[in-house]
Amino acid sequence: MSTQYTVVGTRPVRHDGADKVTGRAIYGGDFTAAGLLHGFILRSPHAHAAIKRIDVSKATAYPGVKAVVTADDMPPAPGDKIVDLGEGETPLSYVRGNVLASGKVLYKGHAVAAVAAVNPHVAEEAARLIEIDYEVLPCTLTAPDAMRDGAPILHADLRMKELGQKTDRVSNISDHFRHVMGDAEKGFAEAEVVVEGEFNTSTVHQGYIEPHNATALWNNDGRIHVWCSTQGSFVVRDATACVLDQPVSQVKVTPLEIGGGFGGKIPVYLEPVAALLSKKTGRPVRILMSRQDVFEGTGPTPGSHLKVKIGARRDGKIVAAQAWLAYEAGAYPGAMVGPGAMCVFAAYDIANVVIDGYDVVVNKPSTAAYRAPGATNAAFATETLMDELAAKLGMDPIELRLANAAKEGTRRADGPKFRKIGCVEVLQAMKNHPHYSAPLGGPNRGRGVAIGFWFNVGLPSSCTISVNADGTVNLVEGSTDIGGTRTSVAMQAAEVLGLRAEEVLPTVVDTDSVGFTGVTGGSRTTFATGWAAHDAAQDVVRQMKERAAKLWEAAPESVTCERGVYQSNGHSATFRELAARIGETSGPVVGRAAVNPRGVGGSFAGAIADVEVDPETGKTTVVRFTSVQDAGRAIHPSYVEGQMQGGSVQGIGWALNEEYFMNGSGAMVNSSLLDYRMPTALDLPMIDTQIVEVPNPAHPFGVRGVGEANIVPPPAALANAIHAAAGVRMRRLPMNPPAVMEAIWRKSTSPDS
Amino acid sequence: MSTQYTVVGTRPVRHDGADKVTGRAIYGGDFTAAGLLHGFILRSPHAHAAIKRIDVSKATAYPGVKAVVTADDMPPAPGDKIVDLGEGETPLSYVRGNVLASGKVLYKGHAVAAVAAVNPHVAEEAARLIEIDYEVLPCTLTAPDAMRDGAPILHADLRMKELGQKTDRVSNISDHFRHVMGDAEKGFAEAEVVVEGEFNTSTVHQGYIEPHNATALWNNDGRIHVWCSTQGSFVVRDATACVLDQPVSQVKVTPLEIGGGFGGKIPVYLEPVAALLSKKTGRPVRILMSRQDVFEGTGPTPGSHLKVKIGARRDGKIVAAQAWLAYEAGAYPGAMVGPGAMCVFAAYDIANVVIDGYDVVVNKPSTAAYRAPGATNAAFATETLMDELAAKLGMDPIELRLANAAKEGTRRADGPKFRKIGCVEVLQAMKNHPHYSAPLGGPNRGRGVAIGFWFNVGLPSSCTISVNADGTVNLVEGSTDIGGTRTSVAMQAAEVLGLRAEEVLPTVVDTDSVGFTGVTGGSRTTFATGWAAHDAAQDVVRQMKERAAKLWEAAPESVTCERGVYQSNGHSATFRELAARIGETSGPVVGRAAVNPRGVGGSFAGAIADVEVDPETGKTTVVRFTSVQDAGRAIHPSYVEGQMQGGSVQGIGWALNEEYFMNGSGAMVNSSLLDYRMPTALDLPMIDTQIVEVPNPAHPFGVRGVGEANIVPPPAALANAIHAAAGVRMRRLPMNPPAVMEAIWRKSTSPDS
Repeated sequence: MSTQYTVVGTRPVRHDGADKVTGRAIYGGDFTAAGLLHGFILRSPHAHAAIKRIDVSKATAYPGVKAVVTADDMPPAPGDKIVDLGEGETPLSYVRGNVLASGKVLYKGHAVAAVAAVNPHVAEEAARLIEIDYEVLPCTLTAPDAMRDGAPILHADLRMKELGQKTDRVSNISDHFRHVMGDAEKGFAEAEVVVEGEFNTSTVHQGYIEPHNATALWNNDGRIHVWCSTQGSFVVRDATACVLDQPVSQVKVTPLEIGGGFGGKIPVYLEPVAALLSKKTGRPVRILMSRQDVFEGTGPTPGSHLKVKIGARRDGKIVAAQAWLAYEAGAYPGAMVGPGAMCVFAAYDIANVVIDGYDVVVNKPSTAAYRAPGATNAAFATETLMDELAAKLGMDPIELRLANAAKEGTRRADGPKFRKIGCVEVLQAMKNHPHYSAPLGGPNRGRGVAIGFWFNVGLPSSCTISVNADGTVNLVEGSTDIGGTRTSVAMQAAEVLGLRAEEVLPTVVDTDSVGFTGVTGGSRTTFATGWAAHDAAQDVVRQMKERAAKLWEAAPESVTCERGVYQSNGHSATFRELAARIGETSGPVVGRAAVNPRGVGGSFAGAIADVEVDPETGKTTVVRFTSVQDAGRAIHPSYVEGQMQGGSVQGIGWALNEEYFMNGSGAMVNSSLLDYRMPTALDLPMIDTQIVEVPNPAHPFGVRGVGEANIVPPPAALANAIHAAAGVRMRRLPMNPPAVMEAIWRKSTSPDS
Repeated sequence: MSTQYTVVGTRPVRHDGADKVTGRAIYGGDFTAAGLLHGFILRSPHAHAAIKRIDVSKATAYPGVKAVVTADDMPPAPGDKIVDLGEGETPLSYVRGNVLASGKVLYKGHAVAAVAAVNPHVAEEAARLIEIDYEVLPCTLTAPDAMRDGAPILHADLRMKELGQKTDRVSNISDHFRHVMGDAEKGFAEAEVVVEGEFNTSTVHQGYIEPHNATALWNNDGRIHVWCSTQGSFVVRDATACVLDQPVSQVKVTPLEIGGGFGGKIPVYLEPVAALLSKKTGRPVRILMSRQDVFEGTGPTPGSHLKVKIGARRDGKIVAAQAWLAYEAGAYPGAMVGPGAMCVFAAYDIANVVIDGYDVVVNKPSTAAYRAPGATNAAFATETLMDELAAKLGMDPIELRLANAAKEGTRRADGPKFRKIGCVEVLQAMKNHPHYSAPLGGPNRGRGVAIGFWFNVGLPSSCTISVNADGTVNLVEGSTDIGGTRTSVAMQAAEVLGLRAEEVLPTVVDTDSVGFTGVTGGSRTTFATGWAAHDAAQDVVRQMKERAAKLWEAAPESVTCERGVYQSNGHSATFRELAARIGETSGPVVGRAAVNPRGVGGSFAGAIADVEVDPETGKTTVVRFTSVQDAGRAIHPSYVEGQMQGGSVQGIGWALNEEYFMNGSGAMVNSSLLDYRMPTALDLPMIDTQIVEVPNPAHPFGVRGVGEANIVPPPAALANAIHAAAGVRMRRLPMNPPAVMEAIWRKSTSPDS
């Protein structure tokens, strides 16, 4: 099918390749400016405490210190102002409160004050001299604990929303919602086989290599210029403006290169603080986080507590499903349980469903997005139970899934009906993959499968394209490039223009220099910014036809364009030939487009995992791993494969090792990359990939977006593989050696073993 | 007339004001990058010499040196390749030869070799170790000398073009052309009064405060990134690509702020050399010129030798005019005599005209544009003779000019017929100005007037505009801002959109991020880039109407827009209100436009000068000076006035003091700002200005462009004032104290005194 394209589906070298591999690319931490000051943020040592007094006098007097700020330096926050910074509506006071704590600290690592000084060491030394009287309060660290009556309350003003209605109940539960489809009770009554279980997942971090950073200059004319690493320059612009009570156009954000984000580099932490320090000093101020700051002060993905129940007929048809999801929002109300509920049963066509979701605040860092946020937790439960169900029914686990797979027209419990999707095709590709039928090759080994869904998002994107006299074009976009999107976006323009990918030169510019563009996240960049590039290229083609018509004295509508060759009435010219003659017509050719796509096609992914479980240590080794995903259309297959491999590795880390290991007083005790055990290349086999292409009918090239769904299946697939290898059902992440060993011991000593 | 506008004609603070006055703006010399190397260019000590041998071995071996380049490092130049870098066609070999001399040096200061080293001092020390065997040749320094038979020949391959035909004659005259209208011989036969004279003007420099600078990185992927101060980022792109034999899209130019240019920052000098050094070292290389480099190695404006003759009837009607113009091109064929010939009689409606122009190479730096290049030299002759003619006829000098002034429909000797112009209106404004009738106020004082013309240029410009949710817009342009054009361009967009100037935020971006845009020069930026901004704003308005229609469920063609208020069928919304709701419609709004205007309206300027000539020293003090100019429409009157004042001051300096003072061997002996005597604020009175507005019918707001015509009248006006004060007719620039004193002595000792 992709043979109709000449650029889409090929694997050109990325435009930023040389800069990235030679170290020439400028990241946020590299940025400098004349007169630069260095900021340091003082963070709370307590998980929950009232701030009785802050005395900054010693810090302010410390030689080399230029300014100290606290929450008092922020503009007064109207208590009830609600803002939407791209991740749903939230009170402005919470956004500001997470940037600099006011009145209370809600987690260890919560920012309390900041110092700007002539160098980072002086800034840190001075910050340590800030005297804060804390009244330490009891803390609550998990959703089940925080939900109980009598739990320490984080926010005295947080009133629970119950089934869409505001209530007067002060609670750590910010929201309890319910999705209902059909009659779950009736469905379970009809079920002949029921599986159910209670699951827990730990808080985990995205683990990007590059810590957060921001430099800000609050200029004398009132404009604020921010340089930082971010997934969304316009989100930083809008959030910084919002926190500082400025119009959005007063803030200019220059996005520098970014060393990973995965959802965690969407919120602002440092930018408003750097701006406040700059306002006080009149100089640019740069703040860099340490790794400990990143773990303790930025947003990990929620820990969660889930109860899921699935009922089926003997023939394998699932007739009812129920889920109870409680997600830890961290210190401020969150948004991740929503997508969790959207995804928990999304892969299946089930008539009777009830889903209860609880968003629960706890004394941990305020959570942020992490690659299909909420979906991985949910799939861990559902897909583990699907494996149990298949075993109980004596069915092949993929066949069971195929028998219930969501298709075009299937309605999700949260409302939407699927347009064309690739769930069945992904399952078939898994079934047909050599890995699925290969011998395991050794003792203590097992194989597990799982699938997962992510709905992907749309959001606005803008592009402009200008034509160079040498027949190339320059493409301007606002999407920060994390995974090769300069190229996957440029390729879509190249396809329209009949050029090679290398002949489209993409540039990611600052927020003053391109139209509004949403975050690089939600699997949206190749989809939506690519769409804008497609449309801008079409705008160029239309104008090139007009120019050809002018040169040939022909009617514009008589000019055709096929793969970059323009023709009319016996005249013919390539894009390059026409470009060279633009000067003879009526000025340069500049195309533009902006899109805000609503018809977004979700993506399904599957994983086949072979593990070997050491019976003496409980250590799980991943022996072979295959990721399968519906890309819709793979614009640049290498980068699709890279996303699939990256998502798989992160899912494996989450499954087997990673967790915020908290002590009883709410301190994370493993906040370094030495102790927070992410898998390295040495820990894993090469991740195999198979791209499935079920084109998204809503996108000009059929793109779906592939950044997220691939992280969803790995934990469940590994849990199922561990069960196959060691006979134990794991209900808790991470499934690290002590946990697996304990399960093995428990099984060996249980009455029915 | 301008009351129809709300923004055009007002005087908002410039958008880059805070950065400029606080020193925050980044100029080329401020730019730095990781791993930066420092370049130094070795220049010829001889005005004319053959290079027999260059030995760079000692320089290369010098500790800290990373690379040495000479002309041999440039790509081989096909001898006959002709390029057009925005200032007319020229052989590529000449462009390359001026960047690094090959085979011969043609002026003292000619670049010969360059060194990149760890710091500028090491680079210079090493460069001094480069051994060059020169065979010194006789030099020729003035047009009359270079034109004589037997003069030293600069280019053995330069064959004179004679009246449009190539000849075989090897000569220092690159071109002799002639414009003929009517029958000059017959006209002079009819004339009752004839004035004539022979004039000389010295080579003068634009005298921008900021020396040239360039940093280049030849990246591992083959792309070349240049950061520099330039009047035209796209000219630097194209010229650098051309010299280095690269496609234009392989070069990206980021224009930094610029500390003056006046035409002299259009050519490339350092950029290709920095790129070659970067290619050899793999590191970015910065080269900064010293003031001496600027004087001796960059392009001043031509010295010239002119013979002009004007014949009139007794009633003041001019019936014939003849001009013979020989301009010094410097070391390579130039382009300035062409405009000189276009402007020499452009102010007057004369039936019989013959103009001969000679472009002559001499052993001085290759000339560059300087504010109305060529016109000031020509007007010095014509306008001095007009003063003599008025005296002979007993007419008021302004009345004489009014009686002969060019009008709409007047044809110039070089071909074009004027569209609507403001020559008469400028003369009338001068006549009516209080200055013209004010008493002189003291002895030894005199008043002179003169007028001048510059045709202005068009060239392509591109803009994009994106709408912010807070009701402001961002404007992206490619015109480097020398005199406040960010604001004069933004104001035109603001006028269309119904916004305040402050609500349009302009950004000057690099060549990858905006469509092709010509130089900031030729008085074109407010005219052409402003036009592009006007059109891009109209593209925004069109889309905003569509969005309003969508929100109101109305037909797009039913929506009207008046001063930023959109209405249809009882609905009404301001731009700001609509902008806030764009998110509800179909994506961001991005407008774009590119223009290549051909119908450019020229500008006339006049000067009234009062001087006092010290009879004992010959020193001329400017007592009062008024500049009058037709702006067409003054978008930002303060910046129009600034151009008029700046042009006047430069014209005064050229008239009274400035010159390349050469010794007999062709060395400039005053190449410092101490010895090259430009007027300072202490030397001059406040320059009064009067803006005349005769709107240019070819521009949406009537803009003409005001950067140049104002420099044309001052030398002639001052010569006429000196005559009025001291009774001497000055035929040579500069009219410095020795020259005036000599003229006074000569007059006092002449038989008819």
